[in-house]
Amino acid sequence: MLNIPQAVTLPPSTLPTALPMSTPGRPGRKAVISRDDLVNAALALLGPTRSFSSLSLREVAREADIAPNSFYRQFRDMDELGVALVELAGRSLTTIILEARHRVSPHMSVVRSSVGAFMEQLFAGDKLLLLLLREGAVGSPPIKRAIERQLSFFEEELRQDLLRLAQLKQTALFEPAMTARAITRLVFTMGSQALDAPKEDQSRLTEELATMVRLIVTGTQALGENPDA
Amino acid sequence: MLNIPQAVTLPPSTLPTALPMSTPGRPGRKAVISRDDLVNAALALLGPTRSFSSLSLREVAREADIAPNSFYRQFRDMDELGVALVELAGRSLTTIILEARHRVSPHMSVVRSSVGAFMEQLFAGDKLLLLLLREGAVGSPPIKRAIERQLSFFEEELRQDLLRLAQLKQTALFEPAMTARAITRLVFTMGSQALDAPKEDQSRLTEELATMVRLIVTGTQALGENPDA
Repeated sequence: MLNIPQAVTLPPSTLPTALPMSTPGRPGRKAVISRDDLVNAALALLGPTRSFSSLSLREVAREADIAPNSFYRQFRDMDELGVALVELAGRSLTTIILEARHRVSPHMSVVRSSVGAFMEQLFAGDKLLLLLLREGAVGSPPIKRAIERQLSFFEEELRQDLLRLAQLKQTALFEPAMTARAITRLVFTMGSQALDAPKEDQSRLTEELATMVRLIVTGTQALGENPDA
Repeated sequence: MLNIPQAVTLPPSTLPTALPMSTPGRPGRKAVISRDDLVNAALALLGPTRSFSSLSLREVAREADIAPNSFYRQFRDMDELGVALVELAGRSLTTIILEARHRVSPHMSVVRSSVGAFMEQLFAGDKLLLLLLREGAVGSPPIKRAIERQLSFFEEELRQDLLRLAQLKQTALFEPAMTARAITRLVFTMGSQALDAPKEDQSRLTEELATMVRLIVTGTQALGENPDA
């Protein structure tokens, strides 16, 4: 599980997977439910072989132990719930990357440690990250747009990082926005492909991705110094 | 439509879309059918909103004007047809890239002209290219593996190109295989994202992708000269 930022706290002990399954009309069914309860219910159902797109509102309601109609008190439809999950995933990934930076040592660049943190989370089977990587291809249009927004946030943050780093290290920088975009998209696409990789390939895949990102970072420095290169 | 290599010739005039739809038990239904007929039938059904994964064997048979059972004379199942389509798409894209190289001028690099040819084909609504870009995410495991094989072929060809170019231009090259992989994956992922782009964004997206590829090519040259950069 990703480290959840303050806004939404989901301690594992409250995950509805631990609750008994409800049956229709069951007397013990909950009357009051929060958005977080529904988010948790959807997360509990997601897995390597269950995408969000394949979940039904009825399944989420059953998992959350509410009547299907109660779902609508919190979300207009499944798309709105999906968008909430994507936003949660974005905030969570931001937290992970920020934490990775604090661990940066003189032996490891910011980029290398961010790539490492991303892949580590991925290989830990993080459901939110899985959602972010997968629904961009199979999700409904509102969910795809939400993922595109999150990717744009990452690109913008990375662009600002690249500018700060270039200033700090006195290196040149060619087209910072395109550089940030290339890195973000490459990390997400290689991450998606690594999802099904066997355990013994994981560290090799992380090293490969780090090398690819290094090619881009070196390229932007070289072209920044000599745009006609 | 992509330029189809010699092995499989599909002149547009033979596409089954021009044929009247068959009805079950229709007396005029074809008795003999080739693999190409089924490939053409599937292609005719594919479109921006119809993925191969969403096609049924029955639909393909109807489009090809045969009884569903006749399908099995040519393909074991829909997956085998899908793999045949992916292989056709791979050969076709190779032809396009080869042709683009012949058009290389002193003002345009091999990489730039290949990226241009790829995006041109994409924006022309090429169904085989669409298949290659989309089924990697939503296809069945055999189809995903077939796409992965095609991507590996492209990577290997590009790696050899990079080696030739580096020798010709007397430039250095850092980790040719990783360089080829980064370029191939970035082109395919940016291509997928460009699929839904409005017409007025198309030339900008092509330029952006060319810039990203240039970052990688420059990076591999710079790191090749100085691996500690």
